[in-house]
Amino acid sequence: MVIKVAINGYGTIGKRVADAVAAQTDMEIIGVTKTRPSFGCDLAVRKGYPLYCTYDSEEKISAFADAGYVCHGGLSGLLELADVVIDCSPGKVGADNKKKYQQAGVKWIFQGGEKHAMTGMSYTSCANHHENMNAEGTRVVSCNTTGLSRTLMPLYNHCGSLKVECTMIRRAADPGDSKKGPINAIKPVLKVPSHHGPDVKTVKPEIEINSMAVAVPTTIMHVHVIIATLPEGHGLTTESILSMWRDTPRVVLMNGAETGITTTAEVMEFARDIGRTWGDLHEIFVWDDGVKLEGNTLYYFQAIHQESDVIPENVDAIRALMGAEQDWRKSVAKTDAGIAASLGL
Amino acid sequence: MVIKVAINGYGTIGKRVADAVAAQTDMEIIGVTKTRPSFGCDLAVRKGYPLYCTYDSEEKISAFADAGYVCHGGLSGLLELADVVIDCSPGKVGADNKKKYQQAGVKWIFQGGEKHAMTGMSYTSCANHHENMNAEGTRVVSCNTTGLSRTLMPLYNHCGSLKVECTMIRRAADPGDSKKGPINAIKPVLKVPSHHGPDVKTVKPEIEINSMAVAVPTTIMHVHVIIATLPEGHGLTTESILSMWRDTPRVVLMNGAETGITTTAEVMEFARDIGRTWGDLHEIFVWDDGVKLEGNTLYYFQAIHQESDVIPENVDAIRALMGAEQDWRKSVAKTDAGIAASLGL
Amino acid sequence: MVIKVAINGYGTIGKRVADAVAAQTDMEIIGVTKTRPSFGCDLAVRKGYPLYCTYDSEEKISAFADAGYVCHGGLSGLLELADVVIDCSPGKVGADNKKKYQQAGVKWIFQGGEKHAMTGMSYTSCANHHENMNAEGTRVVSCNTTGLSRTLMPLYNHCGSLKVECTMIRRAADPGDSKKGPINAIKPVLKVPSHHGPDVKTVKPEIEINSMAVAVPTTIMHVHVIIATLPEGHGLTTESILSMWRDTPRVVLMNGAETGITTTAEVMEFARDIGRTWGDLHEIFVWDDGVKLEGNTLYYFQAIHQESDVIPENVDAIRALMGAEQDWRKSVAKTDAGIAASLGL
Amino acid sequence: MVIKVAINGYGTIGKRVADAVAAQTDMEIIGVTKTRPSFGCDLAVRKGYPLYCTYDSEEKISAFADAGYVCHGGLSGLLELADVVIDCSPGKVGADNKKKYQQAGVKWIFQGGEKHAMTGMSYTSCANHHENMNAEGTRVVSCNTTGLSRTLMPLYNHCGSLKVECTMIRRAADPGDSKKGPINAIKPVLKVPSHHGPDVKTVKPEIEINSMAVAVPTTIMHVHVIIATLPEGHGLTTESILSMWRDTPRVVLMNGAETGITTTAEVMEFARDIGRTWGDLHEIFVWDDGVKLEGNTLYYFQAIHQESDVIPENVDAIRALMGAEQDWRKSVAKTDAGIAASLGL
Repeated sequence: MVIKVAINGYGTIGKRVADAVAAQTDMEIIGVTKTRPSFGCDLAVRKGYPLYCTYDSEEKISAFADAGYVCHGGLSGLLELADVVIDCSPGKVGADNKKKYQQAGVKWIFQGGEKHAMTGMSYTSCANHHENMNAEGTRVVSCNTTGLSRTLMPLYNHCGSLKVECTMIRRAADPGDSKKGPINAIKPVLKVPSHHGPDVKTVKPEIEINSMAVAVPTTIMHVHVIIATLPEGHGLTTESILSMWRDTPRVVLMNGAETGITTTAEVMEFARDIGRTWGDLHEIFVWDDGVKLEGNTLYYFQAIHQESDVIPENVDAIRALMGAEQDWRKSVAKTDAGIAASLGL
Repeated sequence: MVIKVAINGYGTIGKRVADAVAAQTDMEIIGVTKTRPSFGCDLAVRKGYPLYCTYDSEEKISAFADAGYVCHGGLSGLLELADVVIDCSPGKVGADNKKKYQQAGVKWIFQGGEKHAMTGMSYTSCANHHENMNAEGTRVVSCNTTGLSRTLMPLYNHCGSLKVECTMIRRAADPGDSKKGPINAIKPVLKVPSHHGPDVKTVKPEIEINSMAVAVPTTIMHVHVIIATLPEGHGLTTESILSMWRDTPRVVLMNGAETGITTTAEVMEFARDIGRTWGDLHEIFVWDDGVKLEGNTLYYFQAIHQESDVIPENVDAIRALMGAEQDWRKSVAKTDAGIAASLGL
Repeated sequence: MVIKVAINGYGTIGKRVADAVAAQTDMEIIGVTKTRPSFGCDLAVRKGYPLYCTYDSEEKISAFADAGYVCHGGLSGLLELADVVIDCSPGKVGADNKKKYQQAGVKWIFQGGEKHAMTGMSYTSCANHHENMNAEGTRVVSCNTTGLSRTLMPLYNHCGSLKVECTMIRRAADPGDSKKGPINAIKPVLKVPSHHGPDVKTVKPEIEINSMAVAVPTTIMHVHVIIATLPEGHGLTTESILSMWRDTPRVVLMNGAETGITTTAEVMEFARDIGRTWGDLHEIFVWDDGVKLEGNTLYYFQAIHQESDVIPENVDAIRALMGAEQDWRKSVAKTDAGIAASLGL
Repeated sequence: MVIKVAINGYGTIGKRVADAVAAQTDMEIIGVTKTRPSFGCDLAVRKGYPLYCTYDSEEKISAFADAGYVCHGGLSGLLELADVVIDCSPGKVGADNKKKYQQAGVKWIFQGGEKHAMTGMSYTSCANHHENMNAEGTRVVSCNTTGLSRTLMPLYNHCGSLKVECTMIRRAADPGDSKKGPINAIKPVLKVPSHHGPDVKTVKPEIEINSMAVAVPTTIMHVHVIIATLPEGHGLTTESILSMWRDTPRVVLMNGAETGITTTAEVMEFARDIGRTWGDLHEIFVWDDGVKLEGNTLYYFQAIHQESDVIPENVDAIRALMGAEQDWRKSVAKTDAGIAASLGL
C-alpha cells in the first residue's frame, strides 16, 4: 500500500515536506493546497503536485482557473482522497482544521507553530516514535525542539535523567523573508523562561529543561548554547559523548578548527555542498571542538537549520501514525535514503 | 570527441564549474586541484572528481595521502591529460599560471578576478563568443560584467550605440564567508568611476559605460541600478525592451508586485525553488515593473547572483576555445539543458 | 521679540528640533505634544519642555496626570500661545493639522514626510529661503532633498542649469527602530524614477533631476551616488568644485584615504566625536577623493544623516516665516552657532 | 591637589576616558598620545588636550609638526609630568609599557584587553575598590566583566556565595569599525568555557562563574543571558532583587513592555536621549520584565555598552590608586556627577 498524503499549505515548510514525501517509495503526494492563485502555485505545477484550494468555496476555486492554474477542487475533496494530511498552514487555524480532518476521517500532522494543547500529542522520531504509533494525529515539534531532542535524547537514554539550561540565539527572519528585523540589534525574549526549551517535555516529559532566547540579525540558522547537568555517576567523558552523537541519526559533528567551519555561514555553505534542494540541512550541526564536559556539567553549541530539520520528521511521523514502521531508526534510515536517492546523492 | 577539462582551484567557483562541465555530454572533468589536503577535498571525493595538488612538489603531493586522500599528482600531471584548464585559483597568480598552461600546450580560461591585460582576450557568450572561437585562451568576465552584458547587448544590437551609467550595490561577502564586513555601514568605492562598468568594453568595446559602486551589508546578490541613454530614433518602448529581454537567454523577468519578489531575499528564494545545487541563479534577474523608458533614457534594476551567473559561461567558453560550437545561442541552450538534465529539472 | 515655538509631535525629529530651537536666542519652546503618556514624555520633562496632549479631549489630557505627568492641556491651548508650530507628527495627518493651525492663526512648518501639494510651499535654506519670507507656512524638505540641495545648489548657481541622476542607497530603519527589515537583502524601489530626486524641484524647479532608490540593511545613513551633467562652458574643475563646496554651509568634505573614513560607520563615528546630542551630523558628508569631473559629467558620493540634517533647517524656516532674517547664510550661521553654544562646543 | 593624568593611546577608549577625567574637579588631563599624526589628533586638538607621541624617537615626534600638529614630546616626557597614566593602547604592548611606567615612577592603569597575569591586580569599583587603594597599578576589567560585576556583586554580598552560568551574545564590531564581520552569521567561541565569565574572579574570586560566547552581526551592544544559582536560604524574591539593583550605582532597570525598549536598538536610543557624548551608556541595562527567580535559580538579561561602561571605572580606579577616596560609592557618585556637570545634564 502506498500512503496517500495531502499537504494543506504549500509554503516554506509545505513545499519541502511535499518533496520529502514524494521521494519515498511507500507514500505519494495526492495534492497540495494554496489559498489563492499566486506565484507559489508555479512551483507546485512544476513539481507535478495536483493543486487544490484551501477553501471549498466555488468562487475561490474558480479563481485559480481564471489565473491559468488547474485547480482540482477544495480541501474537502482533497481530504476524501487522503490517508493523512500534513498541515503546513501558516496562521493559527489549527483547531478549526483539526475538526475538518477528523470529520473527513484522515490522520493529521500539525507543525510546531501549533500548541501541544491543541493536538494532545507531539512527535519527534528519536524521542517518542513508538508512542505515536497508530495515533489519530500528532504535531511535529518545532525546529528548536527537534534540535534539542536530537542531542539530548542519547544523553537522557544513557543517564536516565537530565537537567538542561539552553540559551537560544535565534535568526530574525527566514532568508526568503525580507520584511522583518531587527537590523543591527539584539532582541531578548522577555518572557523568562522562554517557551522553547520546555517544549521538549511534550515529547520527553522526564527531561528537566528551561531556556532563554534572543533574536539576532541573521537569516540562516539558530544557535543553541546548551548547559546540561548530568546525574552523578554518569560515567561519560567528552569523547564518549562525541561518540554517542556520531552514532545518532541526523546529527553531524565537525571540528571548527580543522574544517574552517567557524560560523553558521560556513555551516550553511557545507549544507549547500551536500546538494539538497534549497541548500537544506536536515541534520543538527555540533562543533566537536566546542563540546566540553566539566565534572557533571556538559557545555556545547549546536546550529539548527530552522527551515528544514523538521522535514524528514514529518515523513517519519506519517509512518508512525499509519503504523507502517515500528522502529524509529529504521524509519529514519528509510526516509533519509529516499530523499538522497531522489536527488541522486 | 569528449573535451577533457581540468579545474585548477576547487573553491567557490571551481566546484560549481566542475559540476556544470560534468553535466555536459561533450566534456568531462579529468581532475581538480587543491593546494593542500583540507575539508574542501571531501566534496571532490564525493563528486568523484580525481584530486590533484596545485603544486608539483613531492612533499606537498604526499601530504594528501597522509591525510587520507587519494592524490593523483601535481598540476603538471593534470595538464598533460587536459585539453583545457579552467583557472579558478583565488590569488593573483594568473600570469604565472598562464605560462604553465602555455608550456603544457593546453587551452586556458581565467575568471574575472584576473585582468584583461593579462589574458588579452575576454569572454561572455552573448557579446563575443565568435571572437573567442579557437583562441588559445580567454577570461570569463566577472559576475558584474556578465550581468551587464546580458541586458545591454540586446539593446546595443538593436540601437548600434549605447551610453550607460551604472551604480553597483555590491554584497559585502559571499554567504559562506563570515569574516568580512562592513556590518551596518555603506562603503563607497572611492575610485571614481569604478573599474566594474568599463570592464564591459573588454567584450564589447563599442558600449560607452561608466560605473560607481558601494558595498552594503548583505551576502546574497549584487544589484545594478542602470541608466542607459539610447540614440535618437531608437524606436523602442518600455514594452518592446521587456520583450527583447524575454527572448534573451539567461535573463529572467518578473513582476515584483505580482510575485511578491520585492528584494534580493525573495529572488534567492525563487532561485532555491528552481532546485539547482547551492541554490544558484545562473540568470540575471530583472524586475519588469522597475523598468522604465523615458524618452531616450532607460532606467532599470537588475540582480546578480555573484557566485553563479558566470558558471555556464565557462562551459560556453570551453566550446568557443575548442571550436566546438560557433553559434553562441546553440552553445548556451546546450549548456543549460545539460545542467538541467543532470539535476532532473 | 522672542519667537514662541510649539512642537506638535515629540519623537525622533521633534525632540531634535526642540533642542535646536531652544538653543537659539531669538526663539523659545513653549510646549511639545505627545499623543498619550508614554516613556517619551520623560525626555520632555527632563528637558523642561511643557507637555501638551496632541488631542483636546479631556479624557486624553487627564490620562497624563493619571500616569504622573503634568500636562498643560490640548493642542488648541498650545496653539493659542504659539507664533509658529513645527509639525513633527508621524502619520499622514498633515491636511487636518494644517486646518487647525490656520484656524488658530499660527504659522506652520511640516516635515518632508508630507507632500508639497498639501503645503503648497517647501523650504531648504540654501535653495529658497527668500521665497519663504513671511509665508503662512511651509514644508522643510526631506533629509534626502535637503542633502541634494546642499551640494547641487552651488553647482546650479554657478552653471545656470543642471541635469542630475541620483541613485539613493537608503538605510532600512532608524537606529532606534528595531522592527523593520530588510535583513540581508537589497530592496529596490520599483517605482521608477523614484519620488526622491524630483522632490528637489519643490525648492528649485530649474534643476532637472531623476532618481532611483534601493534600501539596504543598515541603520545609520543614506548614501547618494550622484551623476550631474554640467552645461557646456561650465568652466569648472574637480578642484574648483571641491572649493565651492568647502565654502558651502553644512557641507563637510573629507578625504577617505587620509582620514580612514571609508564607510558610513566611520562618518557617524566622526559625528559622535563632534559631540552633538544623539551623535547627530547636521552636515552633508562628501568624500573629496570620491569626486571626479570628467568632461561635463560630475560623479560624487555623499552621505546623509537621515535623522538630523533637516534639524537646523527647521530653525531657519522659522526665521523665514517670521520674517526675522532675510539672508539665508546669516540665519544658518546664527542657527549653527546657537546649537554649538548650547553644547559648549 | 589635582591629580595629573596622562592618556597613553587616544582611540575609542582613550578619547572617552580623557573627557571623563577632564570632567572631574580633582584631576586633569596633562596629555594624550598618538602613534603618528593622523585624523584622530584633530579631536585631541579640538578638546585642548596636549598631544604627545607614543614613542620618544625624534623622527616620529617631528612628524607631527610636519603634519601641522603641535606635539609636546614623547611618552617619556609626558610620564615625567604625570601622577598616573591610563594605558588605552590597542595592541598587546602591555608588559613593555608597564616597565616604562614603573621606571618613570607613575601609577598605571591598563584596560581589560590586557591580562590579569600581567598586571597582578584588577579593578572594578563595586567589587574591589578597597583592595586597589594605594596600589602601584591596576587593570580596569573589560566591559563584560564590569557588567557582570555590577549585577552579581549585590547578589553575592547578600548571599555570600553564587554560581553563575552566562551566555554572552557579543557585538561583532564597534559602530565606528567597518571592516569586521560576521555578516549574516552567528559565530560561537569554540573555546569552552570562554574566558569572559571567569575574568570576574580577578576582582571577586569567590564568585563561581563560567561562560560561553557567540558573536552576532550587530555593532551596538553585548547582551548577557545570565543564570545564577543562589544558595539555599537566600531569602530573596524577584522583586527584592529588582529593588537591590535599583539601589546599585550604574545599573538601570526598565520595563520593556512599558517603555517599548525591547531590543538593544532602543536601549542605545535611550542612551542617546540622555545626552552623553558619543551617545554613551555608562550603566548596565537590565529589563525588569526579563528577570525571574524560580526557586534558587535567577534568570535575567542585561545589555552592555561595550564602548563606555568602563569609562567611569577608570576615573574611580585613579582615585583608588592615588588613595584619594576610600569609599567606592562616594567615588562613583563624584565621578558620575562630574561627568553630568560637564555636559550640562
